[in-house]
Amino acid sequence: MKKVAIGVDIGGTNTAIGVVDAEGNVMVKDNISTPSHGDIDRYIADLSAAIKELIKSVKLLNEDIEFLGIGIGAPNGNYYSGTIEYAPNLSFRGMVPFVELLTKHFPDMNAVALTNDANAAALGEMIYGGAKGMKNFVMFTLGTGVGSGIVVNGDLVYGHDGFAGECGHTTLIPNGRLCGCSALGHLEAYCSAPGMKRTAFELMAHYNANDSLLADKSFKELSSKMIFDAAEKGDKIALEVFEKTGAWLGQGLADTVHHLSPEAVFLFGGPTAAGEYIFKPTKESMERHLLPIFKNKIKILPSKLKPGDAAIVGASALVWKELEK
Amino acid sequence: MKKVAIGVDIGGTNTAIGVVDAEGNVMVKDNISTPSHGDIDRYIADLSAAIKELIKSVKLLNEDIEFLGIGIGAPNGNYYSGTIEYAPNLSFRGMVPFVELLTKHFPDMNAVALTNDANAAALGEMIYGGAKGMKNFVMFTLGTGVGSGIVVNGDLVYGHDGFAGECGHTTLIPNGRLCGCSALGHLEAYCSAPGMKRTAFELMAHYNANDSLLADKSFKELSSKMIFDAAEKGDKIALEVFEKTGAWLGQGLADTVHHLSPEAVFLFGGPTAAGEYIFKPTKESMERHLLPIFKNKIKILPSKLKPGDAAIVGASALVWKELEK
Repeated sequence: MKKVAIGVDIGGTNTAIGVVDAEGNVMVKDNISTPSHGDIDRYIADLSAAIKELIKSVKLLNEDIEFLGIGIGAPNGNYYSGTIEYAPNLSFRGMVPFVELLTKHFPDMNAVALTNDANAAALGEMIYGGAKGMKNFVMFTLGTGVGSGIVVNGDLVYGHDGFAGECGHTTLIPNGRLCGCSALGHLEAYCSAPGMKRTAFELMAHYNANDSLLADKSFKELSSKMIFDAAEKGDKIALEVFEKTGAWLGQGLADTVHHLSPEAVFLFGGPTAAGEYIFKPTKESMERHLLPIFKNKIKILPSKLKPGDAAIVGASALVWKELEK
Repeated sequence: MKKVAIGVDIGGTNTAIGVVDAEGNVMVKDNISTPSHGDIDRYIADLSAAIKELIKSVKLLNEDIEFLGIGIGAPNGNYYSGTIEYAPNLSFRGMVPFVELLTKHFPDMNAVALTNDANAAALGEMIYGGAKGMKNFVMFTLGTGVGSGIVVNGDLVYGHDGFAGECGHTTLIPNGRLCGCSALGHLEAYCSAPGMKRTAFELMAHYNANDSLLADKSFKELSSKMIFDAAEKGDKIALEVFEKTGAWLGQGLADTVHHLSPEAVFLFGGPTAAGEYIFKPTKESMERHLLPIFKNKIKILPSKLKPGDAAIVGASALVWKELEK
């Protein structure tokens, strides 16, 4: 009998659902809107209906399939309590007992579990991706924000209350840029996709760079993809954005290495598509900041999760991890 | 039958040895010089002789005692390999297979284990001190340097290669003060006892503070104890040293909390004797730097280990921890 897990990734606008096999392949997937439901009960009812449809469609293909459980990745998802707590970008407010509510619709599942999206990504890397067999590693997800998931001795670090792994909100530059969380100088304000845009605008302002390929883009328009394209054409501003982003990220990764001494750091997300433009300066900066006992030991690797499916696949990994216990 | 453990703390000038009971009381202790032995074999032979003398003296008091093992705390002590690796302040150089060498003299001990001094302190706090029953906490030792030990899910975090927990070498101020490790801006350069002295001198220079109680002390002379005494008398420079040290330390602790979400942070070492002078600004700064999900949740506590015996007691805790397995 083939065993599969269901992954649910809850974002501010969209909830993605997929059925994932033991090799991390998404067999079928679907989407529902996150905010267009009046309240949490209707959202849960619609989510459950969508999951049941997927289960039905998979069973039509192959009757000999066992659905082991549902793994959910959500911002501010707390593994211990199964609640989503005061997530700033979600339409359901306050403390939501998500696992409890969803389990009512799936009383026969062996495991229904929840964690935050970056933790789910780290589990996905461990169960299906480049961290297979690693016992100590860290994953940084670079996107609209910077998330992180920490694995120590083969287990995700949740900490005392379920919220460990917020490396994006460590202080990189005291009294530096305003972060989305309203504090100053956090790593996320420098190394996320919007952080790269902010760096491009700072550099254009500094050099008065009317000749940059980025100089005809508005602040709203500019994306990290455009910065990558400009770097490929040799644009000096764009190239320096990658140098600076890497220097900052490497400083942050060194701090994380000094805490945890991981075997590897995995990078995931849009900005990592720029390859060596971002990996090279990051690696150089991390090495520069490391104590001698850590130098030339810690790998920085691109995630092996497929960008489009990573969130679903990561969430589904939680099910396999639960059933290991 | 009463069970006891032996703790050995190896410092640059002095090696302290003690027999510790299950409540963390040091029953007998002794010292030998660390550097005055020509080579590692003679040092190990002398250390073993001193340990055997202590065992004999304890058995004279009470024949019904079982010696469970020897725990060793040493700079750059690697738990996994049992080696002391390139410790900059020790007289024995290179890679020293310490556990292997010592075990030859004690073939009947159930456990001979080694870790670094700050990890040993964290274990001491967990087995005998204020962290009893805690599963997730962090210990910072403030002294000549700043060490740290991290406990996750009830186990010390050693990381991939045994060297995790070097929070003293995270970057607090990019391109800031020269650290003892030769990098710039590390937490240790600000929050160690010498770091406080450096802050006092910076502040006297800044304010041209001829009227400070610290103004008649040379750089060599000034100690963190003198700064504490001056603060008690209301000296403005001394008071500001504590404010700034706490602000820096709180920033660093917030970074650690964002990684690990511990139940508590324990502070140990000379500067913590200043009590609220250091704890209050540290707590305020940490809270200011924390994400909302962590605010007012994380305790900052003074270590409950006795200052004089803490290193021996911490090292001995390694034995109990080994035998738990």
